[in-house]
Parts: sequence; structure tokens; C-alpha cells
Amino acid sequence: MSLFASFEGWMKTVQVHVEDALEALLPPAAAQPARLHAAMRYTVLGGGKRVRPLLVFAAGGLFGAETAVLARAAAAVEMIHAYSLVHDDMPCMDDDALRRGQPTVHVAYDEATALLVGDALQAQAFAVLAEDPDTPPARLVAMLRVLATAAGSAGMCGGQAIDLASVGISLTLDQLERMHQLKTGALLAAAVMLGALAGRDVSAAEREALAAYSNAIGLAFQVVDDVLDATADSATLGKTAGKDAAANKPTYVSILGLEQSQLLAEKLRRAAHDALAPFGDKAQRLRDLADLIVQRKA
Amino acid sequence: MSLFASFEGWMKTVQVHVEDALEALLPPAAAQPARLHAAMRYTVLGGGKRVRPLLVFAAGGLFGAETAVLARAAAAVEMIHAYSLVHDDMPCMDDDALRRGQPTVHVAYDEATALLVGDALQAQAFAVLAEDPDTPPARLVAMLRVLATAAGSAGMCGGQAIDLASVGISLTLDQLERMHQLKTGALLAAAVMLGALAGRDVSAAEREALAAYSNAIGLAFQVVDDVLDATADSATLGKTAGKDAAANKPTYVSILGLEQSQLLAEKLRRAAHDALAPFGDKAQRLRDLADLIVQRKA
Repeated sequence: MSLFASFEGWMKTVQVHVEDALEALLPPAAAQPARLHAAMRYTVLGGGKRVRPLLVFAAGGLFGAETAVLARAAAAVEMIHAYSLVHDDMPCMDDDALRRGQPTVHVAYDEATALLVGDALQAQAFAVLAEDPDTPPARLVAMLRVLATAAGSAGMCGGQAIDLASVGISLTLDQLERMHQLKTGALLAAAVMLGALAGRDVSAAEREALAAYSNAIGLAFQVVDDVLDATADSATLGKTAGKDAAANKPTYVSILGLEQSQLLAEKLRRAAHDALAPFGDKAQRLRDLADLIVQRKA
Repeated sequence: MSLFASFEGWMKTVQVHVEDALEALLPPAAAQPARLHAAMRYTVLGGGKRVRPLLVFAAGGLFGAETAVLARAAAAVEMIHAYSLVHDDMPCMDDDALRRGQPTVHVAYDEATALLVGDALQAQAFAVLAEDPDTPPARLVAMLRVLATAAGSAGMCGGQAIDLASVGISLTLDQLERMHQLKTGALLAAAVMLGALAGRDVSAAEREALAAYSNAIGLAFQVVDDVLDATADSATLGKTAGKDAAANKPTYVSILGLEQSQLLAEKLRRAAHDALAPFGDKAQRLRDLADLIVQRKA
């Protein structure tokens, strides 16, 4: 996974590592309870852009981490992400029938199974990380702390709660930003930190630079999501387009308009690049990922 | 918390430690998102028998653990237990309106909040454990591994999935036992192991003795639950009585009858005592808890 390979080649290699790790670290489909395990595998395997795993590997490359450690950490963070989508799609939340072009878990299975799939995937994420045989325990505890904090009420779940409470009311730009920093940004930032910690201890200055980068790509990710939700069709997105507007959810597009949202995404992309200046050329993959996040079409 | 105090006095002291730890380790009610945090505190604080925390402290006493470490581990395992009750009570699972004599979380708040409360409590459990400042990291990683494995599809969530699949069908006694070993037993066993690991490394022989004890009390717990469900009223239980029979769920009472179930509980209580023989008098609190689990009235 040399920096001399093309970004596309690097991504493909990482995605193969991550798919292999997920395949190996999820319970086998034949193990009891088989229906739960089949549903967990349906949820996680064979789909998605794997943005968080790519961030784990990009940061890990910068901090000299081993591939096996990164693949495990990437699998853990992807399991957290996947569980959040399953619960988010349930009837009592967004009630969505389509995800990555496939029936959502509560549609393909049933609601009770979707609930348990999410719960079991969250536990599995912490289990696979805690079973890392290669990372020194003190660093592994730090990684577990980063993941748990990002997943909880000070991170992803907290953002979901603010999102729930904001349907039909108007948010300021600051409030919208705060919601997305928790809902999406916290886990993206955790992916970056997990990759770094998988390699070695991270200094306060390095932590600050990575946090600034993560903050920029986290917001950019959501701004671009809102732009795509307003401009792309469901077939391209693999999920229901135009849903936020229909649900009267505040979005960057509804607050700033389309053009200003596109300019903001570009501004955040440049801020992400700037944050990486202290790392020099070695941070190229993180720069590439900032570009990917802003320039993606789905 | 000397062994010379009465069991009742010891329990009260532990319960105060655990309540204080939960109070301190849950997000403050005033912190944003306030509704989520209020619901998390409603779920966890001020109720329940705290059986798992008592097991953490009883095993911890035997292995020389510090009170602060035990209180944190006990809070973590209780958060996992509390989240599982919230999700289990939801309409797509058991659809129960009453828990510990109070409205369940989806009734007191709403379904989406109940879903997020459970998700956030699970993450918080791993976060508070990973934030333990006193336990050597290698042992802390082992504790995190124990908790995550017990919570996931090889433990509690797996048992829930088997339970879901068993409504309306007849299970053999072995199948029923397997379901409860996962659904209830795994987390009780994790509580015992967390207490022990909070003190020091645990030898293979000690691990085996603790596992035999945990296996016995885990099954006894469920047998007694089934007996109480068949014989006690809702006011005494603080939850809906007779519900398993009404839902056509297999229980020990439906398979063995009431009298044989009561004999089985007593047999398991003695097996729990026998498993503790290698530890001598120092394991008295674990014996007391086996007695409590079998002789409780609610």
C-alpha cells in the first residue's frame, strides 16, 4: 500500500483488506443463532463506500501502523457505522426501506431482528477491537475509549437525538453544525484517531491537527450529503433521495441554498488540506480522502 | 465491606457505592442532548435489585479488588443490563409497558428515544470501563473483552435471538437451558469475571470454578424467574406477571411443572455452593448471592 500506487489502487487494496477482516471477524453464518448471524452479515458485508475504514488506513499509514491492526480497527469502526444505519432505518426512526440499493434489515428480516442486529454489532465492534493481539494494551485501551466515546451520547447517539428533536423546527447554522459534528463527524474523527493510535502514541500537536482535519471532513461529508439528497436520484444514491426535504428536516441546502452549500464544501476541503500541512507529503492519502468526500457523486 | 458485617449490611453498602458510581458515570441530565440524557438516567438510576453489581463486588472481594475499580465495573455491567431491558420492552420485542413498577422508556418517552437510550447506554458501558484509571491496561483489556463478548451474539443478544425464535414452539430442556445461558447467564458470568479481574489475574482453575458457579446461578436465576412469573402478582414483581404463559413462551414451569422447577432451583443453589469450595470461607458473599437469587420473592 505504497504512496506511489494510485489512490484508486490504494483504495481497492484497503477495501479488500477490510472486506476480508469483516468476513473473518463477524460470527459465521452457520453458528447459532443462525438467523441473527445471517442478518449481521447481510448488514455489514458487500456494500458501502467504506469511508471510515479508508480513513483508518490513511491515518494508519501516516503513523506507521501494521495492516493487520488497521484491518481490525477498521472492521470495528465499520460495525459501529453499520449498526447505526440499521437502527436509523427502523420504523420508529427514519422508517426507510432502501439502503445501498437493498432492502433495509427490518424489511429483509423483521424489526426485532433489526434491533438485535444493531445491538449485537455494537458489542461485536468492541469485542473485535479488544481482541487485537498486536497492539500494546495501554494503546488498545485508548483506542477502545475513542471508539466508545464517539459511539455514545457525546457522539453519534447524541447527534441522532438532536436530529430527532429538530424535525420540523428551524435550526441555526451553528446548531446544524453541532448536530452533524456529533451524528457523523464523531465517528469519522474516531476512525482517524484509531488509525493513528494503531501505529504509535499521538502527540498533543498531532492530535490537534488530526482533529482539525476530521472536523473539516466531517462537516464536508454532511454538506455534500445534503447537496446530493437535493440533486441526485434514488438509483444513484442507493437510498431514498429528497427524503430530508420531505421530512422537513433542516439541511445545509435548506439553510444556505445549493450554491452556497457547494462553496462551503469546497472551503472545507481546503481546510482539511491545510490541517494536514504539518505532516507533509506523507498525509497524501488523507488529502485524497478529503477530495473524495467532497467530489463524490453518491 | 468486611465479611464480618451482615449480608444485608454488605448489600446496602454495595448498592450505595453502585448508585453513586452510576450517578457520576452517566452523562449529567443538564448536558445536551438533555432529553436523551434524562431518559438514560431514568432508565438506570433508582431501581432494580442490582444483582450484577452485587456479583461484581462479591467476586471482587474474593480477588482483593479496590472499591473504586469495582464500582466502575459494576456500573458498566449494569448499564449493559439496563439497555437490554429498554430494548427488550420495546413494541417490536416484548411490548411491555411496566418495568420496576414504572412506565417503560418507550412509554415514558417514545420509541425512537428508547432505541437511542439503549444504544447510548451500551456505548457508555464500554466508555466508562475503558476510562478506568486504576487497573493495569492488560487486565482492563481482558475486562473489556469479557463484557463485550457477554453482551454480543455469543451472549445476551444471541439469547434474545433464540428467545424470539422460540415463541410458540416447544423447546427441549437442553434448548431452554442454552437460551437462558446466553440471554441471562452470560452477563451474570461476566459480572463475576469482571469482579475477579478487577482484583488480579485469574488462574485457569479459578476461572473454571467461577464459571461453574456462574453457570449454576445463571440457570437458577431463570428457573426462579419462571416460578415467580407463574406464582407472583404484577404488583410484587413490578412487571407484568403471567406474561410468558400468555405469550406461549416455553418456561421451566411449562416444561417441568412448578414443583420440579422449585427442586431444580434448590439443586442449582447447592451446585453454586459446591463450585465455590476451592475458595473456602472467603467466598461467603458469592454463596449469599446464590441463596438470594434462589430465595427471592420478586
